[in-house]
Amino acid sequence: VVLVRPRNPLNIGAAARAMANFGLARLTVVAPYAPHWREARSAVGAPRQLRDATETASLSAAVAASTLVLGTGTLTHRKPEQRVVPLPLAVPIVRDELARGGRVAIVFGPEKHGLTRDNLSLCHLMIEIPTHPLQPSMNLGQAVAVCLYELAGRASETAAPDPPLAPSPADSASLDRLAGLVEETMETAGYSPRAMRAANRHDLHVLLRRLALTQRDTRRILGIFRRILWRLKREGDRNPSPR
Amino acid sequence: VVLVRPRNPLNIGAAARAMANFGLARLTVVAPYAPHWREARSAVGAPRQLRDATETASLSAAVAASTLVLGTGTLTHRKPEQRVVPLPLAVPIVRDELARGGRVAIVFGPEKHGLTRDNLSLCHLMIEIPTHPLQPSMNLGQAVAVCLYELAGRASETAAPDPPLAPSPADSASLDRLAGLVEETMETAGYSPRAMRAANRHDLHVLLRRLALTQRDTRRILGIFRRILWRLKREGDRNPSPR
Repeated sequence: VVLVRPRNPLNIGAAARAMANFGLARLTVVAPYAPHWREARSAVGAPRQLRDATETASLSAAVAASTLVLGTGTLTHRKPEQRVVPLPLAVPIVRDELARGGRVAIVFGPEKHGLTRDNLSLCHLMIEIPTHPLQPSMNLGQAVAVCLYELAGRASETAAPDPPLAPSPADSASLDRLAGLVEETMETAGYSPRAMRAANRHDLHVLLRRLALTQRDTRRILGIFRRILWRLKREGDRNPSPR
Repeated sequence: VVLVRPRNPLNIGAAARAMANFGLARLTVVAPYAPHWREARSAVGAPRQLRDATETASLSAAVAASTLVLGTGTLTHRKPEQRVVPLPLAVPIVRDELARGGRVAIVFGPEKHGLTRDNLSLCHLMIEIPTHPLQPSMNLGQAVAVCLYELAGRASETAAPDPPLAPSPADSASLDRLAGLVEETMETAGYSPRAMRAANRHDLHVLLRRLALTQRDTRRILGIFRRILWRLKREGDRNPSPR
């Protein structure tokens, strides 16, 4: 479970409590508001999940080892580029990912505004809790409880007993390395105007996650781009293009 | 949704919020702690469910019109006499009850101790959220959210389109009237020693709910017992038994 910039210490505590209720151990908190984070961790009866939580500065660091990153949030005011899956239908997706040896992260945004577009570009899928149109937005602690009830409970109770046969999926850190290399290549090739850089980076993150690359695919593509980049740079040194 | 003796105003607010999220309108609060109840109702942004909530002194008054009463809670330290149904398996039960024109109440106990044995004797079924053995007990607001996600969302989304064909089920008020009359009859017949009265009343509540009586059954049995009682009393007046 990853909480991005949580504010309310009670919500942080409630999220950790729900993790304990449904048997999840690993909580990561991204850039929390420091005083509230300290308050949540030091609360009387804080579950182990809170004391053992990892703190990271960015979402990409938090999900580096994850092979399937699920974003959450209300979709009333946004149209994500990822596939949106109603929560009940995410159960088999999570189960299959765990069965093939993957690691799943489920990411919750800040209380007021939810995940940003940049946060979402690091997610493979967007999960939607089916709520009433008049009050679609859920309280953070309650949203965590509902998601974990469905995903942790059901995905594990019906876990496939087969050994992982499918090749192991690429983790988020490899995808980020690949994105960085592709971006550098685009720049070196003079493809990406400076003004377009942020937009291209965002689209590239989304695209790489849609491809469902394996770890091996990713290594191969990294190799190709390293080679291309090396050539481009050598050409550039010999024969600088007018920019 | 019925909350029995809730204490924490934040939990009361969270329960009402979850009802709004999943499209439920009717909240009843039984014997709340007055200052906290006032605080919860007057909170900024309190959902309509809270402002329109009904307050009753007893659980039996709260569920008087309900034909299916579902208790909730942790079963680590108790062994209820009712049938216990894991939450996911309660979905078809609720759906069928709504399809035959019944009214369903879901009852949550106080934060610390949960529903009492007497509370449970007014429930037809006990619902259990499958949680981890090391931390089985859920926060009240989160438990409400999880139950409503499962029951309100799913039970309605797959609601049977057929008109109600089965006879209408007995509501809780009729069952209570029947229980009262049976008890009076037992006493008049000299069956129930004073010391056993509370235990007998409890068992009778549980038994009547297990029978799944229709409203018509209940009327008929009430008629029979009224007649019996009338005869017993007439006999008693003529011919007092040594007590």
